[in-house]
Amino acid sequence: MQNFECLSIRVKHNELQIIDQTKLPHEEHWVTCSHPDIMIDAIKKLKVRGAPLIGVAAALSLAQFVESGASQVDFKEKAAELKKSRPTAVNLMWAVDRLLSVSFDRVIQTAYFILEEDIALCEGMATHGVSLIQDGDSILTHCNTGGLATAGIGTALSVIIKAHQSGKKIHVYVDETRPLLQGGRLTTWELGKRNIPYTLICDSMAAQLMRDGKIQKVFLGSDRIALNGDFANKIGTYSVAVNAYHHKIPFYVVAPRSTIDFSCENGNQIPIEERDPAEVQGVTVGVTHPIRWSPQNASVYNPAFDVTPAQLVTGGWVLDCGFFNFEQIKEGSLRELNQLNS
Amino acid sequence: MQNFECLSIRVKHNELQIIDQTKLPHEEHWVTCSHPDIMIDAIKKLKVRGAPLIGVAAALSLAQFVESGASQVDFKEKAAELKKSRPTAVNLMWAVDRLLSVSFDRVIQTAYFILEEDIALCEGMATHGVSLIQDGDSILTHCNTGGLATAGIGTALSVIIKAHQSGKKIHVYVDETRPLLQGGRLTTWELGKRNIPYTLICDSMAAQLMRDGKIQKVFLGSDRIALNGDFANKIGTYSVAVNAYHHKIPFYVVAPRSTIDFSCENGNQIPIEERDPAEVQGVTVGVTHPIRWSPQNASVYNPAFDVTPAQLVTGGWVLDCGFFNFEQIKEGSLRELNQLNS
Repeated sequence: MQNFECLSIRVKHNELQIIDQTKLPHEEHWVTCSHPDIMIDAIKKLKVRGAPLIGVAAALSLAQFVESGASQVDFKEKAAELKKSRPTAVNLMWAVDRLLSVSFDRVIQTAYFILEEDIALCEGMATHGVSLIQDGDSILTHCNTGGLATAGIGTALSVIIKAHQSGKKIHVYVDETRPLLQGGRLTTWELGKRNIPYTLICDSMAAQLMRDGKIQKVFLGSDRIALNGDFANKIGTYSVAVNAYHHKIPFYVVAPRSTIDFSCENGNQIPIEERDPAEVQGVTVGVTHPIRWSPQNASVYNPAFDVTPAQLVTGGWVLDCGFFNFEQIKEGSLRELNQLNS
Repeated sequence: MQNFECLSIRVKHNELQIIDQTKLPHEEHWVTCSHPDIMIDAIKKLKVRGAPLIGVAAALSLAQFVESGASQVDFKEKAAELKKSRPTAVNLMWAVDRLLSVSFDRVIQTAYFILEEDIALCEGMATHGVSLIQDGDSILTHCNTGGLATAGIGTALSVIIKAHQSGKKIHVYVDETRPLLQGGRLTTWELGKRNIPYTLICDSMAAQLMRDGKIQKVFLGSDRIALNGDFANKIGTYSVAVNAYHHKIPFYVVAPRSTIDFSCENGNQIPIEERDPAEVQGVTVGVTHPIRWSPQNASVYNPAFDVTPAQLVTGGWVLDCGFFNFEQIKEGSLRELNQLNS
């Protein structure tokens, strides 16, 4: 395996490693994933997360498995298991299916191609999105969409980082993103590292900031985009979208083309994963041991994602290959991207 | 001091005690408040919370101070300090001002009158609100508005409890209410004690439940109501209101008359208290020691309340003295209540 190092994933001395995101921001701990089973566990436990990064990590894990001498039968079996480890992440299916579609001797090369491509896709999103941010803008974001969610500099965060790098004075409001606190733990960490001014808030505070005129734009990512522009993203996204719509604040979704599910006509067809009640009963990440603050056995609803209808994406969709507004999406722009691919 | 016991406050063997709400639901620990300074500390640290309960607790604390032989000068000094301990809670001002307005020898009697009155006010709200809930309704609530927020059975929760007691099959969705988790820790505890079926959610999940048709009504409390019907309540209330409005779900505010600030024309005049950044950087209540999951010194915005405009109160205002809809409020119903008082 060829050496490389990103913020979230690396190959070093022939070992594939991921940074354990459940231990951030307190500790930068790298986990060696010497077998796909370890990667599957890491995906399920959110040690590695972020839709694009999961795809890259799964591909590299399979590449390493092949390099270590796995048979084609074993490779296919682990590929199938990896696809099931995070059912909503379409990039994961996309990356694994790509490895399955090439001849067995090209698996490793293709996995590295997926890695390089992800870095390029982030650059593409940043390029197509940067002009949407003006000097002086305050931007709300949700969850983590940066270098911890991709192998490159990020999806929604790539646009924000590019705007900052181009000299625009911006401020970022970061939703903490309960229950897993990707905003409070990870986005704050990334923005701090890059000296981008930010303010951390609880998810429920964004509405009041919008009413007070303190937020000019919303930028966030997506885990799956349907052909009509409806999209799934981290739970809480839909509430942000409704609030942005009410306050007439432009709302932008930033994602690579691989997020589009060409088999999915609209948001109703997107399955929503429900997660462990303990995540809502207390806090299970960013702490040395899980904490419960609710009564024992408190009944809980814990969907990992929600679906936002295209009508609420009042800003538009920033993809690596270009920017699309609601009218263009309605006219079938996403469907056309599939025709270009095939 | 005459003995009595409520869910949240009691006098036992001449000692005024409050249940320490920062230790719930794990431990039912009673704190003896032998001096107003201890009560001021308890209010500031949210050991005692809930706008009506704070008023009762402050009044009883001053009564005890007088009974223990405090001079009128000392009484007035502590009364002034108590009023400053929670600046947004108008009930606190109202209760303390009442004690200041009576002759010194009637302070104790008046404090007990405020206690009895609070219990009666809760009954009044329950009576005027119960018919708004239908058999089969699922109701969203925010923060804690029950017997831990009042000396009686609650404000918004009194309506829900009454509906349940009257045999209606209802279900309650409980916003956890970051950052201080009054929903996750306290409302769940109260509903569990009363065997009322509930589901705990993160604040950001309510919108999706509304979209899925799983919430029929919203009932929540208020810390201060302006004459035009705008009201302040726990941070996150405004986001719930915007979402309920978007989904055409009736939104009800339940509060005693003492919540009305007759000197306040509209919501813009309500001051918003900002609290300790540590509350948003991690969790400071319901845990044995404060936990931080964000980076150290993460910049934070932490308003305790937000203001919701009257236009979003699509259901209406349930007061102890009756139910008012938006049209009635617009025509000056709240102002008229002041004329009745004076």
